[in-house]
Amino acid sequence: MNGLQNTLKRIQGLDQQAIQAIRVYEDTLTKPPGSLGVLESIAAQLGGITGQAFPEVAAPKAVVVMAADHGVVAEGVSAFPQEVTVQMVANFCNGGAAINVLARHAGADVVVVDVGVAAPIDHPQVISKKVRLGSANMAQGPALTREEAVQALEVGIAVAGELIDRGYRLLATGEMGIGNTTASSAIVAAFTGQAAAAVTGRGTGLDAAAVGRKAAVIDRALAVNRPDPADPLDVLAKVGGLDIAGLAGLILGAAARRVPVVIDGFISSAAALVAARLAPLASGYMIASHCSAEAAHRRLLELLGLKPLLELEMRLGEGTGAVLAFGIIDAALKTLREMATFESAGVAKGEA
Amino acid sequence: MNGLQNTLKRIQGLDQQAIQAIRVYEDTLTKPPGSLGVLESIAAQLGGITGQAFPEVAAPKAVVVMAADHGVVAEGVSAFPQEVTVQMVANFCNGGAAINVLARHAGADVVVVDVGVAAPIDHPQVISKKVRLGSANMAQGPALTREEAVQALEVGIAVAGELIDRGYRLLATGEMGIGNTTASSAIVAAFTGQAAAAVTGRGTGLDAAAVGRKAAVIDRALAVNRPDPADPLDVLAKVGGLDIAGLAGLILGAAARRVPVVIDGFISSAAALVAARLAPLASGYMIASHCSAEAAHRRLLELLGLKPLLELEMRLGEGTGAVLAFGIIDAALKTLREMATFESAGVAKGEA
Repeated sequence: MNGLQNTLKRIQGLDQQAIQAIRVYEDTLTKPPGSLGVLESIAAQLGGITGQAFPEVAAPKAVVVMAADHGVVAEGVSAFPQEVTVQMVANFCNGGAAINVLARHAGADVVVVDVGVAAPIDHPQVISKKVRLGSANMAQGPALTREEAVQALEVGIAVAGELIDRGYRLLATGEMGIGNTTASSAIVAAFTGQAAAAVTGRGTGLDAAAVGRKAAVIDRALAVNRPDPADPLDVLAKVGGLDIAGLAGLILGAAARRVPVVIDGFISSAAALVAARLAPLASGYMIASHCSAEAAHRRLLELLGLKPLLELEMRLGEGTGAVLAFGIIDAALKTLREMATFESAGVAKGEA
Repeated sequence: MNGLQNTLKRIQGLDQQAIQAIRVYEDTLTKPPGSLGVLESIAAQLGGITGQAFPEVAAPKAVVVMAADHGVVAEGVSAFPQEVTVQMVANFCNGGAAINVLARHAGADVVVVDVGVAAPIDHPQVISKKVRLGSANMAQGPALTREEAVQALEVGIAVAGELIDRGYRLLATGEMGIGNTTASSAIVAAFTGQAAAAVTGRGTGLDAAAVGRKAAVIDRALAVNRPDPADPLDVLAKVGGLDIAGLAGLILGAAARRVPVVIDGFISSAAALVAARLAPLASGYMIASHCSAEAAHRRLLELLGLKPLLELEMRLGEGTGAVLAFGIIDAALKTLREMATFESAGVAKGEA
């Protein structure tokens, strides 16, 4: 049921008739045709995902924060020490992190999953699905075995399924894992063949020299592991990580159940790219929330064929950009559902 | 009290100490420094406007929709007939327009002001401040007399004052007036000296040929009226309009009372440009909500020195982009107020 292959097989395209019907209806609403821009596109996409003429507004929403550690931090690739991962998980549980504040603002729940933090975590609010105590150092060998990568993907698939069973109808991706921009840049480099320097950024706040060292570590990881760009699982296992695998699984699990999933920033987008390479039709279920300040994020969104809703120079992760986009999505669905038509309001139509 | 000159004199710069204090505090919150990007800038700006260390979250908000007609519609510059202005005012009162839906979503009130609709309006929900029954056709002479322009500015100042007296602490600009993108493009052309063709767009949905005719009308209006770019009142009167003047007054009135005002799209930004030319310090109180699909809006935002929060290809007006930005502003203030600090959460700080 929650197996990877079974999930991939279940992912279907969007309902084009529902999309077309919404497009036609949108032109009857009291506004110049198309003048709500991306709001109209989102409403149509949600129709194509759900098959509903008026996709449900204010459906229960959750942001899933996949937490895991990365062995590559031994190479000094992050401005923050590894223990911050577990400290931030505690902060999530206490409601003090940015994702808690912004999720409350959006009326969304924060679901924290330990898919591989490098320390024991025993907290009633954390879903414990630890695959291993952090990934291995990709600069010296594969970050994960292929089996571990599949296991983490299936954690994400299972979490998506459980949340959808509990009634959630809009999911978002979030993550916490010191070192995970390094893995994300490595994934982009592996899939595109670009040199690491072209796709490596400041992460949590490196200076230019440290970014150069981080890129060199990624180049080394690519040389050591030689991930096969035609084999997404190979890329994910060798230069990815458990948080990224968990998120890719979450996206696939949502798509298989025809539930939209809002993609956060750079790391979430790397996970989305893995998901899209495993199941190209999964892209239809993705909504890109924002373009982050991380250097290669725009390129990554282009690879995904997604246009971000927000561009606020954010580079925090955790799902913060994704939950901020929830408000825009709600707004889009409300305009579809609540606006008067030219006929009902007695407003003259334009000639153009 | 609500006189234009008195209001201009009262507009002061932002509280730089409050801005600096917020910037310092933001770096103690559990996130990499600066990683909330524009959210951090907004919180600091609101601090500079209000002088508060934690600017009030969820303050009562209103979007003011200034409605007026434009004599230049006689030249065939709009895809919609003039009666749509009054029909849409009725739609606002019945709650069926996009601005009603999006304001409800944002928890904001819609305040409709008749500053010059070309038909009698008698509705308890409309604030009646009609200066005249629509402006004159600027292609044949001045749209307004200088006295009428001042009168409409003072309507906006008075509305801002009344709303602030009633407790509103965040205002937004909106408008309804068939023909008002023509006046807005004319204002931009007058201030910048650019040819109309460079700053004229599709409005509610013109095709390319109609845009060309619209630009020719604007060039004619500029040639007939010769507005003086060094005299903002001259520009506003000769090639502006009553809705635009009312909004410029609203912005000035808000700035004089140290209340932030969210600027909607192209027409609102033209009003903001008039306000900024009358009182350069007023810019500090402006938050640009979005960059619309109207051709010259980006240029107009550059002239204002404002960076838009959203870019959603919207081109509807009414204040729709502005109220959509309310959610982002609330989110920014909540992160400042509700996030844990590194110290309170026991999270290790980075080295960078």
